[in-house]
Amino acid sequence: MEKIESVQNPNIKQWLKLKTKKGRQQQQAYLLDGWHLVKEALRAQIDLQIILVTAEFKYQAEFEELKSAPIKTIEVSAAIAKRLSENPAPQGIFAIAAISSEPLNIPAQISGGWLLLDSVQDPGNIGTMVRTADAAGFAGVVFGEKTADLFQPKVVRAMQGSQFHIKLFKGRLVDWITRFKQQQIPVFGTQVSPQAVSYRQIKAQANLALIMGNEGNGMTDQLLEMTDRNLYIPILGQAESLNVAVAAGILMFYLHRVD
Amino acid sequence: MEKIESVQNPNIKQWLKLKTKKGRQQQQAYLLDGWHLVKEALRAQIDLQIILVTAEFKYQAEFEELKSAPIKTIEVSAAIAKRLSENPAPQGIFAIAAISSEPLNIPAQISGGWLLLDSVQDPGNIGTMVRTADAAGFAGVVFGEKTADLFQPKVVRAMQGSQFHIKLFKGRLVDWITRFKQQQIPVFGTQVSPQAVSYRQIKAQANLALIMGNEGNGMTDQLLEMTDRNLYIPILGQAESLNVAVAAGILMFYLHRVD
Repeated sequence: MEKIESVQNPNIKQWLKLKTKKGRQQQQAYLLDGWHLVKEALRAQIDLQIILVTAEFKYQAEFEELKSAPIKTIEVSAAIAKRLSENPAPQGIFAIAAISSEPLNIPAQISGGWLLLDSVQDPGNIGTMVRTADAAGFAGVVFGEKTADLFQPKVVRAMQGSQFHIKLFKGRLVDWITRFKQQQIPVFGTQVSPQAVSYRQIKAQANLALIMGNEGNGMTDQLLEMTDRNLYIPILGQAESLNVAVAAGILMFYLHRVD
Repeated sequence: MEKIESVQNPNIKQWLKLKTKKGRQQQQAYLLDGWHLVKEALRAQIDLQIILVTAEFKYQAEFEELKSAPIKTIEVSAAIAKRLSENPAPQGIFAIAAISSEPLNIPAQISGGWLLLDSVQDPGNIGTMVRTADAAGFAGVVFGEKTADLFQPKVVRAMQGSQFHIKLFKGRLVDWITRFKQQQIPVFGTQVSPQAVSYRQIKAQANLALIMGNEGNGMTDQLLEMTDRNLYIPILGQAESLNVAVAAGILMFYLHRVD
C-alpha cells in the first residue's frame, strides 16, 4: 500500500483544499471523515476516488471490510489525519467522494415529502435536517440560494450519510414552489407568528413541501407569500422558539404520511 | 464605569476559569455570553454577580435596558471579550450568574412532564433538549450521572435561557424513576430496537417522564428495565437513527399534554 507521511505532499495539499468551498468547487469532490460515512458510501456504491487510512486504522476490524472494495487505498500519517479532520480525535479513515456535476434541475414529476431550506445558516442544523428528512421518509431536500454549502465538513458530519439515501438539490426556491403548486402539492411555510396556523390543524399527507427558514430571521417574506399555509408550533412554556432542526423534525414526522 | 483592559487582570483570570468545570465548582458560578441570555436572566430576576460589556456594546440600544438593572457593570476590552467567549465574534456582553448550591433533592410531589438525560454527551444536544423541554411545557430536566456538565459554555449557549424557565436537577436516575413510579407517573424509556413500542401507540399525558440515552450507545440496560414502556420512533427512510435532540423534540411534543 502506498504511504504518505508529509502534510507537504502535493496530493495531501490538494485534499486539504476540500475543506474550503473553493476547493470543493474546483475539484468537484468532498471529504468523508470516519468509518460510518465511508461505509454508507460503499453501501450506496458511490463513486469514491480514493480511501485514506492511518496505520492504526489498519488494525481495526472495519479495515477488513475495506479490502473487498475496488478503491485505491493509501496510508497516511496520524499528523495528516489530524489536518484532514474536523474531529480532534479522528478515526483515521477518510474517502474522497465526487460531487455530481449534473445540473440538478427540478424533476418533471415530483411526489413525496420535500424539505426546502431558506437561508438556513448553521451547518450542524442543515446536516441534521437532511438526516431527519431521510428518517422521515422524505424524497429530497432543496438548498435555497442563501443556505450554507451542502458539502462543507460540518454539514457532511451531521448528515451521517443521508446524502446517499435521499436527493439533494440546490436551487431557486421560488421556482421549486411554483412547480409544487403546478402539481397541486401543498407547500407549507413556517413562521413564528400569530398569523400562522398550528401544525396540529393539518392532516398528514403523502405529498408535501415544507420550508424552514433562517435561525434568527425566519423565512424570507417573498416565500411566505407564495405558500399555501404558514405553520407554527405552539410554544407551551416560556422558551421564545425552538431550534430549527428540532422544529423541522417535529413537523416532518407529524405532517408526512408514507403510504 | 470601572474598566479592565488586560487579560492578565486577576478578576479576568478568575472569570476565565469559569470556562472549566473545576472553575465553576470552585466559584459556584457560570458565564452568560450574549444579550439574549443576559436579558433572560434579568427578566427572571436571577442573582447576577456582575455584568461585563465592551466599549462597542455601550453604543447599542440594548445597553439602555441594562442601565436600570441594579447590577455592577464593568467595561472590558475587546481582547478580553474574545477570550471569555466561545463565539468567534462575541456580542460584547457577559454576565456571571450564581449556580444554586441547594442540594436539589427530588421534590416531594412531582407532576407535569420530566425529561431525564442518561449519559447524553454532546453539549449542543443537551442544551437543545433543555430548550425544547421548556418549549414543550415540561416541568423539569434531570441530568443523570454520566451526562455532560449542566453549565459548560456550549450547553449554556444551546439552552438559550431556558435554565431560567424550568427546573434543572442533577441526580441518580434510578432514584428519580423510583419516585415517579411511587407516584404512578408513567416512565418512558427510548430504545432503537424492535422490542420497543412505537411512540404513536401512546396517548398524550399530562404527567410523564421521558428518558433519552447516549448518542452512540442509547440508554443503560439497568434503566431500560425499570421503565413502564420503552419507545422508538419508526424510521421511514434509510437513516439508521435520528439525532437525539430531534428525537427528544418529536417525543416531547407528541407525548406531553398541557391541560
